[in-house]
Amino acid sequence: MEFPGIDQIDAAANRVLHFVHKTPVLCSKSLDEILNAQLYFKCENFQKVGAFKYRGATNAINLLSDDQIQLGVATHSSGNHAQALALAAKTKNTKAYIVMPDNAPKSKKEAVIGYGAEVIECEPTLEARETTLNKVIEKTGANFIHPYNDQRIIAGQATCAKELFEEVNDMDIVIAPVGGGGLLSGTALAAKYYAPKVKVIGAEPTGADDAYRSFNAGKIIPSINPNTIADGLLTSLGSKTFPIIKEYVHQILTVEDPAIIEAMKLIWQRMKIIIEPSAAVPLAVVMKYQSIFKGKRIGIILSGGNVDFDKLPF
Amino acid sequence: MEFPGIDQIDAAANRVLHFVHKTPVLCSKSLDEILNAQLYFKCENFQKVGAFKYRGATNAINLLSDDQIQLGVATHSSGNHAQALALAAKTKNTKAYIVMPDNAPKSKKEAVIGYGAEVIECEPTLEARETTLNKVIEKTGANFIHPYNDQRIIAGQATCAKELFEEVNDMDIVIAPVGGGGLLSGTALAAKYYAPKVKVIGAEPTGADDAYRSFNAGKIIPSINPNTIADGLLTSLGSKTFPIIKEYVHQILTVEDPAIIEAMKLIWQRMKIIIEPSAAVPLAVVMKYQSIFKGKRIGIILSGGNVDFDKLPF
Repeated sequence: MEFPGIDQIDAAANRVLHFVHKTPVLCSKSLDEILNAQLYFKCENFQKVGAFKYRGATNAINLLSDDQIQLGVATHSSGNHAQALALAAKTKNTKAYIVMPDNAPKSKKEAVIGYGAEVIECEPTLEARETTLNKVIEKTGANFIHPYNDQRIIAGQATCAKELFEEVNDMDIVIAPVGGGGLLSGTALAAKYYAPKVKVIGAEPTGADDAYRSFNAGKIIPSINPNTIADGLLTSLGSKTFPIIKEYVHQILTVEDPAIIEAMKLIWQRMKIIIEPSAAVPLAVVMKYQSIFKGKRIGIILSGGNVDFDKLPF
Repeated sequence: MEFPGIDQIDAAANRVLHFVHKTPVLCSKSLDEILNAQLYFKCENFQKVGAFKYRGATNAINLLSDDQIQLGVATHSSGNHAQALALAAKTKNTKAYIVMPDNAPKSKKEAVIGYGAEVIECEPTLEARETTLNKVIEKTGANFIHPYNDQRIIAGQATCAKELFEEVNDMDIVIAPVGGGGLLSGTALAAKYYAPKVKVIGAEPTGADDAYRSFNAGKIIPSINPNTIADGLLTSLGSKTFPIIKEYVHQILTVEDPAIIEAMKLIWQRMKIIIEPSAAVPLAVVMKYQSIFKGKRIGIILSGGNVDFDKLPF
């Protein structure tokens, strides 16, 4: 399979430049002291819609032809990709159709509708989701933008680590959380092209460890009934993300939910920034496997900051 | 009375330069849209110890002679000034003695002890606090650093607005929360010296509105049994802060606790940063008095970010 090349990622970076925030890289002296390492946090919680997902959605939508754009875009997602695609469509003055399970939180639906998208509800099964999406596309001609299993999305997510490598030199390791693998595969490609000495680690909740198992087995083994507080990481690797991860990621490390919650609280307390549970998984991994990370210069992708304050885990 | 002059504030800025963070100024497109104004948030929640208080404590301790410094510093506070003085003392390799009521939250005591200070407990009355502090000073010779009623503290807090004025031009208004008045009087002096066209507004909880009443009466009227979620603003104006506020502040506006909580939640949700209730009072004022603020360029001092996550108001 052909992976997105350096030209594609360079082009993606130029394409999204005026649409996405160049998010800051923050450091924390107290976290560095606690962990005996130098940590560089790339703050995608400050990205538009509160998550890195806006990069991929923006890249994908800007690759459509004018004729295609007029027909709108469609996806299935109850998470950050739904909001990202909704806002990206709004920016291009076109329509987004978002298929969501009818048991998705009301707040998620409202957020997407707030960005001007149309929400189409379906039963909470994979089959209903795909059938409903296909019907929407058949009826409207909208362009399907998959949340992660799409080269345009992967190239867009890669722009995040690209910015990090441009800002911080000589890092030893970069860690990204892994769900469907869009962010991790993009991060791995960015490391390969722009910082080839940097080791790439995927951080995954034990309760949804399909990437860990797939990576070690050398083939995709999807999660069955995944369960974790890190609700952005419930999805399994896709056919386009897995090969990149298999080739260019050095290691997948897993961590339990209580440690994820502890890491999330530590970032809230010490850095005074809001991150969602999924974004805390890399720090939880650093805390669990201290012997690997001691003394190292480590980039951490804080993937998002969308939290339901009524359901805080602490 | 003589107020700190521009030379004193310039000197304070140079003195604290290498000890304090130059905190970022953040903007939020979505808050600007909601409020029809341009808001510039000076993020002292990212300051060391999580609050602007570290500026004043650092300025004060660095004005002591070498002989004085050896004897240490002392204060009464269960809030951010306690942590600020503790860390400032640690930085100068000397001791901080912090008098705290014995009913202060355990987390506050632990934080101060964590910075290497000695906590001396007393009964939770004003009298016990002063008696205990005097005993500590008599015994140790430590230098008393008042939380706000001190020219060195006021000059130190002024460096925060000074930085804001250097970064953002042509603001119409700057708003700071007001408790004892150290931050507000420093902000007013900074405006007078560095941005004389900027209108200075104090933001105060209705449940602790001594500054509002004192400002309008032209004399200090302390709060009796103040009560507000904004627990950093329970103190009343002092003899050194009130005259500056009376002279150089344009207006004090008050706001009720539910509106403070709403403003705090809005900043958490939209800006993905953690601020304490006291820091939300200026935004709550902007939301309440929209006719005053519409279309204006407004600086807002986010005074701190120390929150007890077990007692969130939402």
